[in-house]
Amino acid sequence: MTQKLINDGNAAVDEMLDGVMAAHGDLLQRHERAPRAIVARHGPRPGKVALVIGGGSGHEPTFLGFVGKGLADAAAIGNVFASPPPQPAVDAALATYGGAGVLFMYGNYAGDVMNFDMATELLELEGVEARTVLTTDDIASAPRDQRERRRGVAGNVFIFKAAGAAADLMMSLDEVERLARHANARTFTLGVALAPCSLPQTRRANFDIAAGEMEIGMGIHGEPGMRREALRPADAVVDEIMDAILAEMGAAKGDRVAVLVNSLGATPLMELYIMNRRVAQRLAEAGLIVHRTLVGPLCTSLEMAGASITLMHLDDELQRLLDHPCECAMYQQRRPGDADDR
Amino acid sequence: MTQKLINDGNAAVDEMLDGVMAAHGDLLQRHERAPRAIVARHGPRPGKVALVIGGGSGHEPTFLGFVGKGLADAAAIGNVFASPPPQPAVDAALATYGGAGVLFMYGNYAGDVMNFDMATELLELEGVEARTVLTTDDIASAPRDQRERRRGVAGNVFIFKAAGAAADLMMSLDEVERLARHANARTFTLGVALAPCSLPQTRRANFDIAAGEMEIGMGIHGEPGMRREALRPADAVVDEIMDAILAEMGAAKGDRVAVLVNSLGATPLMELYIMNRRVAQRLAEAGLIVHRTLVGPLCTSLEMAGASITLMHLDDELQRLLDHPCECAMYQQRRPGDADDR
Repeated sequence: MTQKLINDGNAAVDEMLDGVMAAHGDLLQRHERAPRAIVARHGPRPGKVALVIGGGSGHEPTFLGFVGKGLADAAAIGNVFASPPPQPAVDAALATYGGAGVLFMYGNYAGDVMNFDMATELLELEGVEARTVLTTDDIASAPRDQRERRRGVAGNVFIFKAAGAAADLMMSLDEVERLARHANARTFTLGVALAPCSLPQTRRANFDIAAGEMEIGMGIHGEPGMRREALRPADAVVDEIMDAILAEMGAAKGDRVAVLVNSLGATPLMELYIMNRRVAQRLAEAGLIVHRTLVGPLCTSLEMAGASITLMHLDDELQRLLDHPCECAMYQQRRPGDADDR
Repeated sequence: MTQKLINDGNAAVDEMLDGVMAAHGDLLQRHERAPRAIVARHGPRPGKVALVIGGGSGHEPTFLGFVGKGLADAAAIGNVFASPPPQPAVDAALATYGGAGVLFMYGNYAGDVMNFDMATELLELEGVEARTVLTTDDIASAPRDQRERRRGVAGNVFIFKAAGAAADLMMSLDEVERLARHANARTFTLGVALAPCSLPQTRRANFDIAAGEMEIGMGIHGEPGMRREALRPADAVVDEIMDAILAEMGAAKGDRVAVLVNSLGATPLMELYIMNRRVAQRLAEAGLIVHRTLVGPLCTSLEMAGASITLMHLDDELQRLLDHPCECAMYQQRRPGDADDR
């Protein structure tokens, strides 16, 4: 039984949202009719594409931490590791609709696809156009020629960020959708799990990993990965991940990338930065330029131990979108030169 | 044996720092002679008090994550859970000295006191005045009438922030020291541990907690707490912590506080926000006004499971200092109204 600071496991998501609103009411608001729809106070406005993200809980700061000016306008929140039903997505969309269409973005999981597709149909009945871009950055989850079957994982952070910036720059729905697809196509993630997590309802481990083993490519809900191996030193693990990502990405010398070294939950910053050291070495050896690096627990699986590495293969468009400022409860992008201004 | 993504346990801190510099070279630099001295690129300047923080590693983002414009000018970095020796503190101070004196701030631990005191003496030989303010926010670590014996824990975040803002506002050494002491005197933390961490060198648990138990007041290096009890629901744990903090703080109705709900490492955001829900309820019941809430892993003990709650009892001075913008690799304070400007 995992030791947890919770009350009733079945109330965990709603109580979490109460705590989020108590902390971040300056940036976020809860939809009055739909308590599982979290809406940005400062982003939505007339003429702007409404970007609505969402998915199961337990991945915090994904998804609700990325709602805010310059990123997502709203998030629809499901139970732990479970898709939200259609209604919060509909309510989130209508609450942030500015007359320029809605873009739904979420990881490619069957339950999410079903529920957001129903939300899209419900919005059509209201005369609101809603489109969908699925994230499919997890290279472990299907072969390279079946990218559309892959799952969305930590690369969400960069992909949502790019789309959110495009929307904040008042681009059209066609253009926001194009850039979201472009961002997804150029984002690659691979993770490694070292120890399981447990759902608040059961407190039982959702899988087993023997001491001295790791699982490469395990999904963020414990979906089977590519293989189990002996746990090796961090540099060897990073090399295995980087070999796979670099082979997929096909970048040329001098190309720029954004890097995310992500904790799945329990793995501390010390280990992430040790991993990032090797990531930076490998990128330098490949002649690639690191434009930006994020390190931390950005797409988690409750208290799972492990980490993932994401690379976004930048071009001028994507770099501009990643650099665009955003102001979310759990992700801020400062303006270039902010530190020098004062 | 804890599963860790590290290489050589003895190299973990230096490799972590390599990874930190690879990620945050726009904001941080390593002292050329002192690789364990991490210096802000944008903060230090002539006429400004140099604020140098530091302590053992394994608490990230404490301490190095709080180096940056508006907060600390530099940090001296020790081994895991071990004080830095005097030299990196001296080098950090000299590298950021602006002619207005140096303030050392760190948690009250015997090893840190010894080493920073030696650093102070070495600086005197160079004609540089250095003073010290110890943080003593952990109310579990000594009785109320012996505050000066208490340890410094997560409240560091607010206390350093207040002092860093005072220095950034170009206040004198006397004034920065006064405000740092004032901030410390009004900051109260109490934590609870649910599961141990392990040092990279040994990978063995640094203490044992039986399933179904918790330890109230355990220190961030596993120092013994006030008592062991049955693990109870989050609200009951928060109530126990809040009762103790509110009794110490002695605030009057209408007073303002800043709140930090901190993960010791493995405890995920979901649990922290569930705790914050109850924190906010208790503060509302007491008639206190929450000015700002931070939630997340800000002062950790590697992958220890557990959490702490910190309250800073604000007044106009402290509120102004907490609101002052800062730009660190792992802590940014936006300017008021930032989200509306764009």
